[in-house]
Amino acid sequence: MPTQLSVFIAASVDGYIATLDGKLDWLDQAAREDEDYGYDAFIATCDGVAMGRGTYDFIAGIEPLPYGDRPLFVFTHRPPAPRAGVTFWEVSAHEALAHWTDRGLRRIYVDGGRLISSFLAEGLIDDMLLTTVPLLLGDGIPLFQPGARRASLRLDHVQQFASGMVNRRYVRVTEANAHG
Amino acid sequence: MPTQLSVFIAASVDGYIATLDGKLDWLDQAAREDEDYGYDAFIATCDGVAMGRGTYDFIAGIEPLPYGDRPLFVFTHRPPAPRAGVTFWEVSAHEALAHWTDRGLRRIYVDGGRLISSFLAEGLIDDMLLTTVPLLLGDGIPLFQPGARRASLRLDHVQQFASGMVNRRYVRVTEANAHG
Repeated sequence: MPTQLSVFIAASVDGYIATLDGKLDWLDQAAREDEDYGYDAFIATCDGVAMGRGTYDFIAGIEPLPYGDRPLFVFTHRPPAPRAGVTFWEVSAHEALAHWTDRGLRRIYVDGGRLISSFLAEGLIDDMLLTTVPLLLGDGIPLFQPGARRASLRLDHVQQFASGMVNRRYVRVTEANAHG
Repeated sequence: MPTQLSVFIAASVDGYIATLDGKLDWLDQAAREDEDYGYDAFIATCDGVAMGRGTYDFIAGIEPLPYGDRPLFVFTHRPPAPRAGVTFWEVSAHEALAHWTDRGLRRIYVDGGRLISSFLAEGLIDDMLLTTVPLLLGDGIPLFQPGARRASLRLDHVQQFASGMVNRRYVRVTEANAHG
């Protein structure tokens, strides 16, 4: 079984995951403490985390990194100083998947707009939990960049929160589940 | 009361309302005859329709136009030959709203990615019924272009269909309903 590649991300109604300068204050303000958007349950099923360099730079100052003992894979052309538990590499989406599969990892959390889009361009994302925040941001880092491989998705579930947040979970339709 | 400005539109999960050449076959294939996404109920409450020239050109060949006796307003810098019931004009979003309000129109259906975005840039859209089609299109005409006025929205309702389509309705938060 190839490693399952999963997205868990929040975006504004107009499709931005962060402001252009990487700010998430609008998301923090919209989220409510008493609502469970599913992150803890999700990350508990992942045994690795992948992100691009832009996303890493926003969390690099956090010590320890917020992923427990899960290995972190950072896609970058300009690796910074080595860090325990972090692989800085320059590989294609297919090469990364082959490595994770060889290593026996079952599920990787793929994060960050650019990295998600590069995996979607290869048709490699298996499932996406998308949280839509009830606001228009106007500009920012887009969740989806042009170039995703055209594909049908199966809607797995929808959940609505009192805050106005909406979770939608989509699963890639493969031949095995196209008629499911 | 100013005229209410409303959006009713379908987009792919990655945010496209049509392919780059304006095709909607992917939407027609995903929609099911036995599912009611709400268009008939919506259009029944509108007493006018607005769109940009790009959208108009796709429906211009339909005779009669599919909006009954509702006046159609086409925003264009290059008006074609006159047509009964159609106003080709070159006005700002604010000028259009003032005209509709003066004319006593209660609700206008604002259609097309560019026109929707130009009204969102002015903060003038009152409500949006967004249907998300369960597929990745990869490229196309985006529903949201950068530049929407930053604004909180109130989630009015969510509806999930067996096909995997999801309707979300958002209402602009104004001072009058900010605490509703």
